[in-house]
Amino acid sequence: MTHHVAILGASGYTGAELIRLISGHPNLAISAIAGERKAGLELADTFPHLRHLDMPRLCHIDDVDFASLDLCFCALPHKTSQKIIVNLPHNLKVIDLSADFRLTDLAEYRKWYGDQHVAEKLQGEAVYGLTEFYRADISSARLVAGTGCNAAIGQYALRPLISTSAIDLENIILDLKCGVSGAGRSLAEYLLHAEVSEGCGAYSVGGTHRHLGEFDQEFSRIAGRSVHVQFTPHLIPANRGILATAYVWGDANVIHNILVKHYREEPFIHVLPMGETPSTHHVRGSNFVHIGVIADRLKDRTIIVAVLDNLTKGSSGQALQNANLMLGEVETQGLMMAPLFP
Amino acid sequence: MTHHVAILGASGYTGAELIRLISGHPNLAISAIAGERKAGLELADTFPHLRHLDMPRLCHIDDVDFASLDLCFCALPHKTSQKIIVNLPHNLKVIDLSADFRLTDLAEYRKWYGDQHVAEKLQGEAVYGLTEFYRADISSARLVAGTGCNAAIGQYALRPLISTSAIDLENIILDLKCGVSGAGRSLAEYLLHAEVSEGCGAYSVGGTHRHLGEFDQEFSRIAGRSVHVQFTPHLIPANRGILATAYVWGDANVIHNILVKHYREEPFIHVLPMGETPSTHHVRGSNFVHIGVIADRLKDRTIIVAVLDNLTKGSSGQALQNANLMLGEVETQGLMMAPLFP
Amino acid sequence: MTHHVAILGASGYTGAELIRLISGHPNLAISAIAGERKAGLELADTFPHLRHLDMPRLCHIDDVDFASLDLCFCALPHKTSQKIIVNLPHNLKVIDLSADFRLTDLAEYRKWYGDQHVAEKLQGEAVYGLTEFYRADISSARLVAGTGCNAAIGQYALRPLISTSAIDLENIILDLKCGVSGAGRSLAEYLLHAEVSEGCGAYSVGGTHRHLGEFDQEFSRIAGRSVHVQFTPHLIPANRGILATAYVWGDANVIHNILVKHYREEPFIHVLPMGETPSTHHVRGSNFVHIGVIADRLKDRTIIVAVLDNLTKGSSGQALQNANLMLGEVETQGLMMAPLFP
Amino acid sequence: MTHHVAILGASGYTGAELIRLISGHPNLAISAIAGERKAGLELADTFPHLRHLDMPRLCHIDDVDFASLDLCFCALPHKTSQKIIVNLPHNLKVIDLSADFRLTDLAEYRKWYGDQHVAEKLQGEAVYGLTEFYRADISSARLVAGTGCNAAIGQYALRPLISTSAIDLENIILDLKCGVSGAGRSLAEYLLHAEVSEGCGAYSVGGTHRHLGEFDQEFSRIAGRSVHVQFTPHLIPANRGILATAYVWGDANVIHNILVKHYREEPFIHVLPMGETPSTHHVRGSNFVHIGVIADRLKDRTIIVAVLDNLTKGSSGQALQNANLMLGEVETQGLMMAPLFP
Repeated sequence: MTHHVAILGASGYTGAELIRLISGHPNLAISAIAGERKAGLELADTFPHLRHLDMPRLCHIDDVDFASLDLCFCALPHKTSQKIIVNLPHNLKVIDLSADFRLTDLAEYRKWYGDQHVAEKLQGEAVYGLTEFYRADISSARLVAGTGCNAAIGQYALRPLISTSAIDLENIILDLKCGVSGAGRSLAEYLLHAEVSEGCGAYSVGGTHRHLGEFDQEFSRIAGRSVHVQFTPHLIPANRGILATAYVWGDANVIHNILVKHYREEPFIHVLPMGETPSTHHVRGSNFVHIGVIADRLKDRTIIVAVLDNLTKGSSGQALQNANLMLGEVETQGLMMAPLFP
Repeated sequence: MTHHVAILGASGYTGAELIRLISGHPNLAISAIAGERKAGLELADTFPHLRHLDMPRLCHIDDVDFASLDLCFCALPHKTSQKIIVNLPHNLKVIDLSADFRLTDLAEYRKWYGDQHVAEKLQGEAVYGLTEFYRADISSARLVAGTGCNAAIGQYALRPLISTSAIDLENIILDLKCGVSGAGRSLAEYLLHAEVSEGCGAYSVGGTHRHLGEFDQEFSRIAGRSVHVQFTPHLIPANRGILATAYVWGDANVIHNILVKHYREEPFIHVLPMGETPSTHHVRGSNFVHIGVIADRLKDRTIIVAVLDNLTKGSSGQALQNANLMLGEVETQGLMMAPLFP
Repeated sequence: MTHHVAILGASGYTGAELIRLISGHPNLAISAIAGERKAGLELADTFPHLRHLDMPRLCHIDDVDFASLDLCFCALPHKTSQKIIVNLPHNLKVIDLSADFRLTDLAEYRKWYGDQHVAEKLQGEAVYGLTEFYRADISSARLVAGTGCNAAIGQYALRPLISTSAIDLENIILDLKCGVSGAGRSLAEYLLHAEVSEGCGAYSVGGTHRHLGEFDQEFSRIAGRSVHVQFTPHLIPANRGILATAYVWGDANVIHNILVKHYREEPFIHVLPMGETPSTHHVRGSNFVHIGVIADRLKDRTIIVAVLDNLTKGSSGQALQNANLMLGEVETQGLMMAPLFP
Repeated sequence: MTHHVAILGASGYTGAELIRLISGHPNLAISAIAGERKAGLELADTFPHLRHLDMPRLCHIDDVDFASLDLCFCALPHKTSQKIIVNLPHNLKVIDLSADFRLTDLAEYRKWYGDQHVAEKLQGEAVYGLTEFYRADISSARLVAGTGCNAAIGQYALRPLISTSAIDLENIILDLKCGVSGAGRSLAEYLLHAEVSEGCGAYSVGGTHRHLGEFDQEFSRIAGRSVHVQFTPHLIPANRGILATAYVWGDANVIHNILVKHYREEPFIHVLPMGETPSTHHVRGSNFVHIGVIADRLKDRTIIVAVLDNLTKGSSGQALQNANLMLGEVETQGLMMAPLFP
């Protein structure tokens, strides 16, 4: 049985990644791809790497026939997304890849994003899209909010530990190394090749990155108390991939055991043998997460290193995994392709 | 029906690429992966990006049960390959990714590779593996010689023109821009990141690159006369991808028409609209070839720009495409994945 | 004796490169740096790598005290430059790094740049700034037009040959591999890291690149007849550096001898031993040009490979070299720093 | 007055960097460059970017006339260095860039490097070469031990704080992002372009990196008690540059004030305005260190981000700075060149 889907915001990187992934899915068909600035163009004009696909032209959102759809992916910019989604048919399944529906607390949303939300009611309805931890809710959801890519990798590294006493919740440091595609196809000086290549810098330092809103919401929810981590992202000269180095206070073997046990049945999450470390090279273009646990020379200090591809498992791959759940497909359908290396 | 295959030389990049591709093929199963230096190791120890696959350990070639195989891929180094293949069961289908069986003329082989061949009889038997041009021969072949990656892209750009009078056969210049993975996983100073990144140099200049043997053989065969092109490769700071810029004397519209017509039914070869140019970004990780044709401002000068991924269409993807033909599978099976961009 | 200079357009890459170079010059002092969009800012706010220098704030062009200057560098965008320069004091020495004064023929200017020039009289007065070939004129010039970076490297490879009978003037092909900084600090999608890294594409194919205007003007002038080359640039994933591969019809030894002899006394131009090839890695950040000559396997075909750093010898280094001549300084002053490798 | 120096180990990256820097120093002359594997070659054969320099051929160490030297730089591999230095004339000033003389405690040396030292007496005599902190000792030293590049940047970020009560000495985390040239010109798989480009991984995780020996020695010496930091390096796809992110417990304003005050007179160390963060892009090819201090959202947590170029300030630039002190030259001589950006 074929499910018909549309992609709104198809001229950005997460939109293109959705098309790439869905093109390998046997039971999903793309009925419409919308991109306001590029409406009327062939897909190949904006993404020549998808030239081989038989796709409709890019259209205006208003021209999408939503009644014929089984599900709609929204890969629109933050703040634009909520304005569109609030007006979609209320029975249409929607997966939003923006930040607009990740935070359920209205005050937290305003704190991190600075604006009144235009779809507050939907905020409460939306399910947080970290598949492995909200599987049942996602399966029956109408609206799923894709997670931040940084928030995803940090949670994969730490979530199973938060509700245990294995680590000290007062002292969690997340140091991230992020590829540039996480910032999207934006025309900004700091994203130019000449400014990125061959160097590294920190950004949103000091606890100002918006994905902290997700960490606070999720970790506090699990712990049943307020948990605030330190989180510092760094931009590295790579297109895809995030490597999270988590510094925690706790015993490495205990931590490794918890993670191994927790993720044992997960098809996409691989906990490496004790002491091994992953690389973003090894998940590029795939939906996999690799997690390593290493004991520091200092007693009761453990380093957890986790990697994912921000465009796949960190956004569009996650979205397709959730779509599979929402549409009654096998969860891994279209997502088991091997990473591209080198 | 499942076909059982082995990969000899699985610790190099073309070996890993074969495993990546075959892991997405519904009807091929990998029975053995051999790598002499790494025999006994788990695949994940040498290629952590393939960690998610259920694969046998790396073994010695001598430990492979060839009798149980339907086909064997040899991704071994040049000169090693012939020594192994000459001793394989003579009814076993073999696809060799090395240079050992590409040249059918023994003298040409010695000229370009400098050694006596140890399997001269097989040289005559081997079919040249440029799928789109040797489809029937490959389908019934016992031994197929994968082409050089540079030789492949040059031929895709030019072959349909060689037998016509559309271009001047005395004046063909091929200027190639090549990613580093074409040189394999070799420990050589010129392949270090610090020597490759952020720069560009020419190599094998002056008509000394061995893939010229293939150009000479194939183009002369087609033309029915001796054809010798100029070919200069350059190393660029990219892992995958070759861009060939061909300078020819002839009318661009005539040339474009010939290429469009020739490749119209080919699933992997895309001739762009007249005047457009391709980029290696747009075929990375895929089995596609993009070809652009542009008229120069100088009368009767045409520029043909063609791209492929050297590890996919230029070697392991080509090998799988040929295996599909040899095993009676649909030719495109396991090979229609979209390129990875960005 | 200290010469006082200003830099107009100091917030772009060529402006920053001028400041870098002048900071190492013992007899030049920067009195003013102007950048309209960033006027009022500290230099470190737009170029943190120049933080250690004691520099004036960025100002508006109108706020520069031109009367106190010995020379003014204009690193402004094309078309803006002419509007500013036409209004500068008419006795002020000016070096323009834009394309505005490179073409002396008004019709050629309109053909390549599409507009009426606002300072036609100055066009005739301007000296073409390829130092090694216009030394005397530059020394006494009031206005010098810096060359295109692609035009510079092509001319270094070919100029000494054009007036001889060593090569066939009907058949000259220039295939260039160019780093991204040649396009400046522009916000364009094709300059984003995610679009440039790990790939290669051709651009301005077919003889449409504006630097062809310079090739036509200069080569025809030398030859005393119309000479039109083929020129195809390619964008490679590197920040600095251009590698030009020139395909010519002629004897390699004759060509090598002419180039060796011509450049023997030049401090910045190095002709490599016969058969050796250069790399852009080996001139990065320096004012040097390396030129290699290689005989092709085909009789009377020669390949000339030449490299420079587009921001140094291709623009700002050239500008400083010309400034030295115009101000009576030693020509190499401030320019003999070694390249940065790796 | 000209000082005559030799460089032992001139075929590696730190050797080449020494030559680059010294070529811009008015009072140092290179009398000999030794490289065992490449003895007899021209320098341009191993480092074409230094082709413009008038240099002696590479020779054997045994062929160096040490009696004629004022100072000798040893850029040899670890463990080789001590064997050579122990046999040099005992009155010859020596700067060693290897790890052999950094640790003064013999047991610590064996713990981190695993071998008996062959020049234990010299170990005690050697001065630790972190210029800004050992200026007087270095000025009068006979043998100076260059620091580890990671150890250098970590100390620049933290040393002025260790002897104060501004930070908690029990909780110091150093997360480093390192370019590949720190590993030298070594033929290792993990240093190949195809393995480094477009990705990021951690290495020597868990407190196993040898530079920890230096942190322990120096920080404990300053504190007057045992201080052990956590230190985790990551390899990023860049040739030069290290970015250290230090997580400390203490007040950001207090910390910023201490650093500003401490480095106020230092020509190479720039503490940024409170809240700003540096990038490795901004020190490439230079002898500068940029340090940023940022308050985290969590009370009394501070992030210090510091950058240097590992080949310049982290090794060869440091060596030349020390040589200036040892030879009575102005400390900054030959070292004030601006960074190369982009």
